[in-house]
Parts: sequence; C-alpha cells; structure tokens
Amino acid sequence: MSLLRNVLQRCQRGSGLLQGLRKFSVSASCNQSSSVDVTVDSATGVATLKMQRPPVNSLTLELLTEMCIAVDKLDSEKCRGLILGSGVKNIFSAGLDIGTMYQPDEPRLREFWRTLQEIWIKLYGSQMVTVAAISGHSPAGGCLLSMCCDHRIMAEGRYTIGLNETLLGIVAPTWFQDTLVNTVGHREAERALQLGLLYTPEQALSIGMIDSISKPEDLENEANEAMKKWLKIPAHARHITKLQLRQSTIDRLVKNRQEDIDHFVNFIMKDTIQKSLGMYVAALKKKGGSK
Amino acid sequence: MSLLRNVLQRCQRGSGLLQGLRKFSVSASCNQSSSVDVTVDSATGVATLKMQRPPVNSLTLELLTEMCIAVDKLDSEKCRGLILGSGVKNIFSAGLDIGTMYQPDEPRLREFWRTLQEIWIKLYGSQMVTVAAISGHSPAGGCLLSMCCDHRIMAEGRYTIGLNETLLGIVAPTWFQDTLVNTVGHREAERALQLGLLYTPEQALSIGMIDSISKPEDLENEANEAMKKWLKIPAHARHITKLQLRQSTIDRLVKNRQEDIDHFVNFIMKDTIQKSLGMYVAALKKKGGSK
Amino acid sequence: MSLLRNVLQRCQRGSGLLQGLRKFSVSASCNQSSSVDVTVDSATGVATLKMQRPPVNSLTLELLTEMCIAVDKLDSEKCRGLILGSGVKNIFSAGLDIGTMYQPDEPRLREFWRTLQEIWIKLYGSQMVTVAAISGHSPAGGCLLSMCCDHRIMAEGRYTIGLNETLLGIVAPTWFQDTLVNTVGHREAERALQLGLLYTPEQALSIGMIDSISKPEDLENEANEAMKKWLKIPAHARHITKLQLRQSTIDRLVKNRQEDIDHFVNFIMKDTIQKSLGMYVAALKKKGGSK
Repeated sequence: MSLLRNVLQRCQRGSGLLQGLRKFSVSASCNQSSSVDVTVDSATGVATLKMQRPPVNSLTLELLTEMCIAVDKLDSEKCRGLILGSGVKNIFSAGLDIGTMYQPDEPRLREFWRTLQEIWIKLYGSQMVTVAAISGHSPAGGCLLSMCCDHRIMAEGRYTIGLNETLLGIVAPTWFQDTLVNTVGHREAERALQLGLLYTPEQALSIGMIDSISKPEDLENEANEAMKKWLKIPAHARHITKLQLRQSTIDRLVKNRQEDIDHFVNFIMKDTIQKSLGMYVAALKKKGGSK
Repeated sequence: MSLLRNVLQRCQRGSGLLQGLRKFSVSASCNQSSSVDVTVDSATGVATLKMQRPPVNSLTLELLTEMCIAVDKLDSEKCRGLILGSGVKNIFSAGLDIGTMYQPDEPRLREFWRTLQEIWIKLYGSQMVTVAAISGHSPAGGCLLSMCCDHRIMAEGRYTIGLNETLLGIVAPTWFQDTLVNTVGHREAERALQLGLLYTPEQALSIGMIDSISKPEDLENEANEAMKKWLKIPAHARHITKLQLRQSTIDRLVKNRQEDIDHFVNFIMKDTIQKSLGMYVAALKKKGGSK
Repeated sequence: MSLLRNVLQRCQRGSGLLQGLRKFSVSASCNQSSSVDVTVDSATGVATLKMQRPPVNSLTLELLTEMCIAVDKLDSEKCRGLILGSGVKNIFSAGLDIGTMYQPDEPRLREFWRTLQEIWIKLYGSQMVTVAAISGHSPAGGCLLSMCCDHRIMAEGRYTIGLNETLLGIVAPTWFQDTLVNTVGHREAERALQLGLLYTPEQALSIGMIDSISKPEDLENEANEAMKKWLKIPAHARHITKLQLRQSTIDRLVKNRQEDIDHFVNFIMKDTIQKSLGMYVAALKKKGGSK
C-alpha cells in the first residue's frame, strides 16, 4: 500500500469544524517528527503550512506525503485559504531530495515521483486561495511549489528562485515547464530552463515569477494581507475561473502520470545521471548540506 | 425567428456604394430608437460605430443585435476600417445588461448570449481594421468588445477597464479568457480574472491591455491616426495574418456555441447567482444606475 | 535529385575530428563561390557561420542549401555551439531572395521553400547552442533565422529587425508566426505581423525579440561570451529541455511540409502577388539593391 494511503488512514481523526487557532501535525512515519507544521485560523478559515525539515527543507517522500495529507485535510475542513511557507531560516525549500534520487530504491523512487505529481495537482488546482510566502532560497522543486500558488511574495535578501535542474544535468519535466511557461511566458521559460537560471527577488519580480517583494519581517503580514484581498472574491466563481485557466495544464499530466513516472525513473537511473548526482552529493557533504 | 434575422431583413435596404460622409442607424425594434450610431466616411472607407444607450451603454440584446447588423452591413459595403466608440459621456460600455440576466426570460436569455457570441466572432476576426476608442469606463463586456479590436486607445482620467465578472460571482466564459490571455498573457490573465481586476489606463497600458492613452479631447483624432497607419498595410495580407493568429481561438467557440449557451444559461439561472444579481440590481437602483 | 542531396554528396569529405582553428566552405554549385563562411574552433567546439552574399545576404536557394549542409556537417563533427553571423557590412540578412519569388521557375520555387523549411527545422531544434550575432539589418527571413537561435545579440545603430512581410502584401507562414509568438508573445506578434513592424535594437530588446545590444565592435566578443555561458550547462539536459519547449512547434510544420509548400507556391504565383513583387523589384533596381 502506498505511503500516502497508509498515513491518510492513520490521520483520519474526524476533523470536524474549525475551532479557534489550532495546530495539527501530520507525520508520515511513527519514528519521525512531522516535516510540516499546519496552523488553522478558524476565524478566517486560513491555514498556514510551514515546511520544517532542517537544514534545507528537502522535499522527501515523507514531506511530500505529509503535504498531500494536510491539503486533503484542509479541503475536507473547508478551509478557504492556504499560506505556504517555511519554518526553516533562510530557506523556502531546496527542492527534491537528492538522497532519494541517488542510488535509489526504485519502488520508493516511483512513489516519491507520484507523490510529487500529487501535491502539484492538488495545489495547482486547489479550491483554496494559495499564497506562497517565500522566506528564503527557492530552487527547483521549491520554485515549483511556489508557482502552484495563486500569489507569491518573496523576502528581499540574497535569496534566489528558479528551476535550475539543468545545472545538475537533469531535465525539468514537461509539467514543471508548463507551470513556468504559464507564469513567465514561453521565451523567458526557454532561457530560465535551459540556463538553469536562479533569479534574485528583483529579477524574479521583473519577469513575473513572483508578485511582490517584502522585508523579511513583514513577509507573514503581507501574505495575510494578500490573502484577505483574494478572499474577498466570491470563492466559487474564483475557483472555476482558476480551473478554466489551469485545468488543461493539469490534465496533460493526469492523462500521463504513469508514463511520466516511468520516464523520470528511467532517466534518473541512467549511469550518467547517477554519476552526476554522486558528485553533487559528495560536494554537499563537504559543505555539510542537504540531508 | 431570431431577432437578428428579423431585423436583418428589415434593414436590407440595398446599401450600394459609399457616398460622402453618411450616417445610418439600425434599430432592433420599431418602438425604440437605435442604440448604435454608425457613420461612414466614404473617402476613407472608415466607419465609426458609437454605442449610444444612456446612461451606461449596457449591452442589451437590442444593442448587440444592432451591432451585428451594422458590422454585416459595413462588411457588405466593403468598409476598410471600423472605429468602435461610445456616444455616452464617461462610459465606453458597462458590459452585459444585468436586467436581461436577472429573473430572465429563458428564450430571450439564450438569444442574448448567442448574439454576444456572434458579435465577438464577427469583430475578433473582422476583415476590417478595428480600433477601439475607449472614452470612459469599460468593465466586463465593454472590455471584451475593446479586446476584439486590432488596436485600443483609452482616454486618460478616472476610468477603469477589465474583466471583473468574478466580483459579481460570475465566471467569465472560456472565450473571454482566451481573448484576455491572447492580449495580456497567461499569468496576468490569472490575476485579472480571479481578482476581477479593473485597471486604470496607466495600468492597462503597462500590461498591454491597451496600446496607448490619449487626452479625452484627442481620442477621436488619435483613433483616426492609428486607423490610417493600419490601413497602409495591404488589406488581404493583413487580414489573413490576423486570422492565422486568431482563428483557432474563434474556432474553439464556433465548434461549441450551443454547449456554451446551455452552460451560461444554466449557470445564470442558479439560485445563488440570481440572488447575487438581485442584490446588485438593488444596489444599482439605489445609485440610480444601469437600465 | 534535390540540390541539397546533390551538394551534400559532393561535400562528404570525411570530416573526422576537429583540429585547430579551421575554415571550411560549402559551395552549392561549381560555378559560384560559397555564400557561407564557416570557421570551427576545435579548442571550444564552437563554429561561426557567416552569411556572405553581398550586397544584402539575400536568402537564395544556394545560400539556404549551403547553410543546411554546413549545419549537418557541424552536427556530424559534434560541434557544441554555432554563432550565426554575417560577413557583409551593415546587414545580417535582407531575407528571402525576391528574385526567386518573382516570375519564378516553379520547381525551383518549391525546392527553395522546402530548403527554408529545412534550415528552420535544423536550427530551431539544434543540439548545438545557437547564438545570433546580428550585425545589421535583419528583416523578414533574416529575423526568422535569428529567432531560431537560443540567444540573440544585436549591434546598436540604425538597424532594424522584424517580420515585415505584410508590407509586401505577403503573409508570413504559420511557422514564422509560431516562432515569433514563442519569442515575443501573442499580442506583440499580432501587432508585429499585421503592421509588418521593423524594430530598432532598443525596441526589439524591450519586447524580448533580442536578448542584448552591443557596440558593433564588441559584437563578436559578446557572442563568444554568451556562448561560453550557455556551454557551461550540461549539453544533454539543455538540449532535451529545448526540444520539450520547441518540438511541438517544429512538429506542426513537419507534419505539414508538403501542404505548406503548395500553399506558399500557390500564393506567390497569384497575379496580384507577382504584380506587387514586380513593383518591389523595380524599386530595388532603381536603388541598385538586392541581387
């Protein structure tokens, strides 16, 4: 049984109505503390989901699974808005966990990819208003998650954001590309993806990858202000409008999930890619980074 | 028989060659004066069509029908250019007539929507050069009509333009969206449509929704200047080029008209939407607006 | 047998490994000197292809054929980068050769068009990094060739660039349009193509048609610097990424080549188009231009 279903059953603890400011945490395994921290403000119906997997919020199977569960739970609780942020200083998310892709356990690699597809599908078409509060670096999968949202605010500072997969010799899959093209247009996507560009907040703003820049200390506030503005719009009309614009992009993946998984797994397990990942892991270990 | 065909027959008064500056008016019913005012300059082959349905140029079935008839007539007279403007001060058009949609007569509502489709199809692919002279507010359907044109000039002032349907709880249909995406790109369309944004002339210019801003007193002149520039291009090559860029968008609706009408009518007749429209009508009556 | 295959056989002179800075020239006929000048730097694996058909680098069947052969040869030699430039002062390329289209020999006109399709297909999806060094005027076909590249640098000065086909009464085919839409977006493409706009370098930069402007004397240097930056990216991942973004556009033509040729030939051989081309040729002769 998949990790997702497995944990989902453990977590079905009759959520009921929203009551006050409330935290819940979703843990994908019994031995580990949760990688996501969810707070719901029952007065506004707005949830805040913070990734909290130090040091760099690598997107592991567990973290992605917990995000899926949390979003399902918030949907079932009729939450109206979701602020996606980070509980780790200076980093939004470093992207996909390299450890899962290097010398992989194939079934786990497959589930990892399916879960990434799942959270993308859930977030990109979510009925909730979704605001990304990008409090630090946001390369690769971190950038992807933020682009699933309706609105993106990034903290000023020496942070960067972008789909830099090619730098590792990896190809961002078509649905990463579609998401980026929908955000910054075809030509900028060509440059961004081929060169693996990481943008400063100012650059990201100028190409439309983010919607505004805030001082780090104001980020939470501004995310809440943006949320208020979006929540003023009649929710049903807003969501149908969103789907009219995004559903065809979502469908391209939905019709093609198994093929996309096969494609990804075959690609990652190639000797050349494994070698490239190996060198990267070694470099990270020297710096004391990643896992 | 449809209103459109009905009036069309009454109006087939052997148009013949263009002669001098000439006005014609198209009335959709015998009891009403015309809602559009058409002037043709036979020296240039340029027609000016002004909506003139005070107080706010609401797009009623009659006005839309008259626009369709007028455009057909101008086509049959081999007019080369059409300037689309307003004869009502401070307003281009307030968009679709709420009165037709609130507590609707269903057959009439269906014909209303079919006629809106019709004028969009005619204008968006017109063989004429089409220039919108946006002399005032231009929300919703008013914005749509202007975006069907080849070139848009807006008067400076406290006017706004945009597809603000969601504010009323209404979803702009897919072909409104297609038109907007083709004009301002996918990401700005996401923001614009979900938030129901109404842009100032300066904002509209910066996102490419309009092509220039003029002083109100210069608007007519600048529209004529723009028209002259466009008319210098060999007409056949220009029109084929336009169709190569717009026909696939037009075809999406053409293949789908009946379904689109059913969808719209079902949506509008929902209790929740009727309630929302009812509150809006009440608010308008207080201000003494709309009909 | 086609000119392309014909010359290709003559040119198969066992290319082998790259050695030092090396020139090769490809001549499409025995009586003519070559219209393209190719230099390969074996240290970097970067080739420079300069069009050199004075006075204006008109794209003749011979020049296009030689470009196809050269690109094939560079591919077979595993070249990593291609800088596309001009050996003629003040001009990148004036575009398609009018002489081939005016009072045409039909079989030759067909082969001309097929060869243009061929070079577009080869360049737009090339495994090489392609940089256009636009050293002068670049209308019509010249603009198209530059837009096939990954990166465009244009020399400052009184030069212009754009797809100005409509000015001649000609319609840029759908794949020219697709290339432009992918580069500058749908709305700007509408304006550009319908009005046959020729942009200054500053204008071209502001709409994203080019990526930077350089002083004429620095152009070569800056093209090499850009090339270095692009070559740092793992080649395989970069090329797959490019294809993911461009293949669907390429496929639209590939599935449709014969129809596209028929369409073009029928269009060009129309009396009205021939007349228009005739007047243009006469005007050029007065100025002493073109062939």
